[in-house]
Amino acid sequence: MKLRPIGDRVVVKVIEQEEKTKGGIVLPDTAKEKPQQGRVIAVGTGRILDNGQKVPLEIKEGDRVIFAKYAGTEVKIEGEEYLILSERDILAVIEE
Amino acid sequence: MKLRPIGDRVVVKVIEQEEKTKGGIVLPDTAKEKPQQGRVIAVGTGRILDNGQKVPLEIKEGDRVIFAKYAGTEVKIEGEEYLILSERDILAVIEE
Amino acid sequence: MKLRPIGDRVVVKVIEQEEKTKGGIVLPDTAKEKPQQGRVIAVGTGRILDNGQKVPLEIKEGDRVIFAKYAGTEVKIEGEEYLILSERDILAVIEE
Amino acid sequence: MKLRPIGDRVVVKVIEQEEKTKGGIVLPDTAKEKPQQGRVIAVGTGRILDNGQKVPLEIKEGDRVIFAKYAGTEVKIEGEEYLILSERDILAVIEE
Amino acid sequence: MKLRPIGDRVVVKVIEQEEKTKGGIVLPDTAKEKPQQGRVIAVGTGRILDNGQKVPLEIKEGDRVIFAKYAGTEVKIEGEEYLILSERDILAVIEE
Amino acid sequence: MKLRPIGDRVVVKVIEQEEKTKGGIVLPDTAKEKPQQGRVIAVGTGRILDNGQKVPLEIKEGDRVIFAKYAGTEVKIEGEEYLILSERDILAVIEE
Amino acid sequence: MKLRPIGDRVVVKVIEQEEKTKGGIVLPDTAKEKPQQGRVIAVGTGRILDNGQKVPLEIKEGDRVIFAKYAGTEVKIEGEEYLILSERDILAVIEE
Repeated sequence: MKLRPIGDRVVVKVIEQEEKTKGGIVLPDTAKEKPQQGRVIAVGTGRILDNGQKVPLEIKEGDRVIFAKYAGTEVKIEGEEYLILSERDILAVIEE
Repeated sequence: MKLRPIGDRVVVKVIEQEEKTKGGIVLPDTAKEKPQQGRVIAVGTGRILDNGQKVPLEIKEGDRVIFAKYAGTEVKIEGEEYLILSERDILAVIEE
Repeated sequence: MKLRPIGDRVVVKVIEQEEKTKGGIVLPDTAKEKPQQGRVIAVGTGRILDNGQKVPLEIKEGDRVIFAKYAGTEVKIEGEEYLILSERDILAVIEE
Repeated sequence: MKLRPIGDRVVVKVIEQEEKTKGGIVLPDTAKEKPQQGRVIAVGTGRILDNGQKVPLEIKEGDRVIFAKYAGTEVKIEGEEYLILSERDILAVIEE
Repeated sequence: MKLRPIGDRVVVKVIEQEEKTKGGIVLPDTAKEKPQQGRVIAVGTGRILDNGQKVPLEIKEGDRVIFAKYAGTEVKIEGEEYLILSERDILAVIEE
Repeated sequence: MKLRPIGDRVVVKVIEQEEKTKGGIVLPDTAKEKPQQGRVIAVGTGRILDNGQKVPLEIKEGDRVIFAKYAGTEVKIEGEEYLILSERDILAVIEE
Repeated sequence: MKLRPIGDRVVVKVIEQEEKTKGGIVLPDTAKEKPQQGRVIAVGTGRILDNGQKVPLEIKEGDRVIFAKYAGTEVKIEGEEYLILSERDILAVIEE
């Protein structure tokens, strides 16, 4: 089973951050912030401008991205959780 | 009797999810989340851009789709319940 | 006396639904939902796009339509009640 | 003294409705609904589209119109009250 | 000193209305409504459409106008009070 | 150090008004209104229309302007306070 | 690891201001205002207009900028904090 996003949507697998203090102490769950990073699983074909032109996404499958807090919709497919976002909610790509 | 959606609307038959925990325990109704999946029954002819061009929908009849929570309007036709959504409320197609 | 809707407006005569349970029991008024179906009495000449082009309505006189809950304006003309809606509040046509 | 509306505005003289029950009983003032009908006194030259084209109004002087509840601005000129509305607040023309 | 409005702005000198009842009784200040009439002192050069075209105002210096209640910004220049409005807040010109 | 505003922004040095009553009495600080006048220190290169055309500002360095109350962002650079506004928040130029 | 902003986004490293009173007294943390200055670390490729044209940003890497209070999203990458903003939230460049 595969997800095919519509328009300018992207499907993201959230990366749970192992949050440590600068001194290296691993924080418990309750002290973690809402994660804002993920790996792009699938991208839509793009959005259509008012002149009829289709603009492909800047983001591609496999990109590691930072997204806006509380953006997107969480979905669960076959027990796995994903986040579906519009490209405008993707702030930056982390180049590795 | 058949429904013909207007513009970029789609008619969806919601798929009630048999929600199980990862361990396989079937959850009672009160523990289920609001369903977000459906089967597309009918699609509109598309939306009209500001330049007069008509853009056909990316979604087609028979697609299994994920839609935004609380999106669309529930309607009951001959005792059957449907959800009518704009294409922009459809997040992704689940390819089977 | 006749109503001529302006722009993309349509005039609808609401169809009061004789709501029955699946078992055939007719529900009293207080158990009925707000009706969302109607018969189109008149349609406007269409809306004008930003490029000056006039787009005629997809809906035509005589269509049986489903509209969004709480959409439109109720008007009373010579003792008869009508609902005037924008085409964007019409969700689908019921083909009979 | 004459009113010349700007853009897509129309000046309307509200028609106070002699509201009767179906059985013919005339209702007192407190039982009347807010009037939604009026006679068009003057119309603007039209609105300008983003392409610079001027679109004349569909409504013309002398039309009897139905307008949206609570729309427009009430003005008093030489003791007479008028309602100034945008064309988009005019729902339909009543053809007599 | 002179005011030159920017874009589609107009500078208006509000006309305080000597409000009388139909029977001719002059009302005290507390019974007066917020004035909605003024004399146009200066007009901007117009607004720029999305196609780059500049649209001059329909209103000109010296016009007596009716404006929307609570619209615009009150400014005081050398002890004199003016109202600066966008053209879209001007409802009509009173032709004398 | 110099400020270069972005797009249609302008940098303004607010003019504190020595507010006097008509009779010439200078008002204490607590009786003064929020100032709405300033001298333009720097202007952006203009805003870009949807057709790609760049529209230069109507306002130029050195202009004395009236701006909308509570508009813009106050910034402090090297101990000096400035107000950065969009051109649409500038109501008029005071020609001296 | 490097951040590549999407569209018209810019990545900014906030400059903590050593805030002193005019008399030279250094203020404690609680008396400091929310910082509004930063150094641009990376810029997106630009935003796409409705005519399909891509507009590159006015801001470039290395610029010292003033941004709107409370604008943007704070992100933490490898223990370093950054602010990701849209170009429209950048008010001005400080030329040094």
